[in-house]
Amino acid sequence: MASSTAAPWKQLLVNALQANAPLKHSSFFQLATIGFNGRPSNRTVVFRGFQEGSDKIQINTDYRSRKIEDIKHCPFGEICWYFTDSWEQFRINGTIDIIDGSNPDPVKLQQRERAWFASSLKSRLQYLGPSPGLPCISEEPCNEYPLDPSTGPVGAFCLLVLDPEEVDYLNLKSNERLIYTSKRNGDGGQCWMLEKINP
Amino acid sequence: MASSTAAPWKQLLVNALQANAPLKHSSFFQLATIGFNGRPSNRTVVFRGFQEGSDKIQINTDYRSRKIEDIKHCPFGEICWYFTDSWEQFRINGTIDIIDGSNPDPVKLQQRERAWFASSLKSRLQYLGPSPGLPCISEEPCNEYPLDPSTGPVGAFCLLVLDPEEVDYLNLKSNERLIYTSKRNGDGGQCWMLEKINP
Repeated sequence: MASSTAAPWKQLLVNALQANAPLKHSSFFQLATIGFNGRPSNRTVVFRGFQEGSDKIQINTDYRSRKIEDIKHCPFGEICWYFTDSWEQFRINGTIDIIDGSNPDPVKLQQRERAWFASSLKSRLQYLGPSPGLPCISEEPCNEYPLDPSTGPVGAFCLLVLDPEEVDYLNLKSNERLIYTSKRNGDGGQCWMLEKINP
Repeated sequence: MASSTAAPWKQLLVNALQANAPLKHSSFFQLATIGFNGRPSNRTVVFRGFQEGSDKIQINTDYRSRKIEDIKHCPFGEICWYFTDSWEQFRINGTIDIIDGSNPDPVKLQQRERAWFASSLKSRLQYLGPSPGLPCISEEPCNEYPLDPSTGPVGAFCLLVLDPEEVDYLNLKSNERLIYTSKRNGDGGQCWMLEKINP
């Protein structure tokens, strides 16, 4: 059992990101949530870094996408992140916080603004397009809107922050599997239990 | 609206498999289910082909793994399959059938046997190892069991068959998104509705 401010699995993940960095798709992972209909839902999203000074994982998304309704209904998610070069898998289960423009917390609004300016202009333009998931009514490409680079986050831009509670690490080269489980201390701190299990 | 025996999205998937065939990991996808604790669960699994003459998707798994309990509790799953070369994503939602050695249906037992012999000897050996997910009590590698190539499926070997009901196809190169939804006819047949939606 280890108690520290930086989660002990975080260094494994940082190493995997470095080892697989030449592959553009190494920053993509699959996020599972539970849909409004009670069925699992699963999609590829882009890793937008850890929240500053923490092990929370950031994802940008469109507030109009179906996953927002899903997460409002059931805030739990599991990331499955498979690194194709190093044969490592991270399954990261946790609770997801939705930070949109109406969030009452000024610190969270700042985080959302930082995430907006950290993404490319091309990425930002997507949030000006038509609602994702709605019937496509135009044959024209819809992303030809002007956007000033200094313009702050638009209404549809939303930051998701996943707070990890369990991390299941599998290394297919060494055939090793580790489970990290978060426990809250009485004083509000967090510690991580580590167990080696059969792959 | 199209009605046919072969699902209209199947050819798109077959094409993607061919286009991405040089990448070993193109046969891997992420399967989301709902855990016993009501939280989403997500892991990488290997595509083991379509069930003969159908568009059902086969996955091999260990009967002792946690996902079996999950699927018994909630039979729904969503595959997220991202092809890193062609930038195509398939989200395939459906119901999962568990076929283990105690299945009363002789046709399903045959399918399970075929899946066993279609997998490599190395893959088969995994089912003789210790229970996945249990604490690792040995420091020794545990997969040094003898296995005769003509031996049929062992008790832990299990075939999962996902019957697709909705397929959400996204092409990030053409920026096109299509939703295929299955409808059952009165006569027990199946037809697929197609809708083009915003990505």
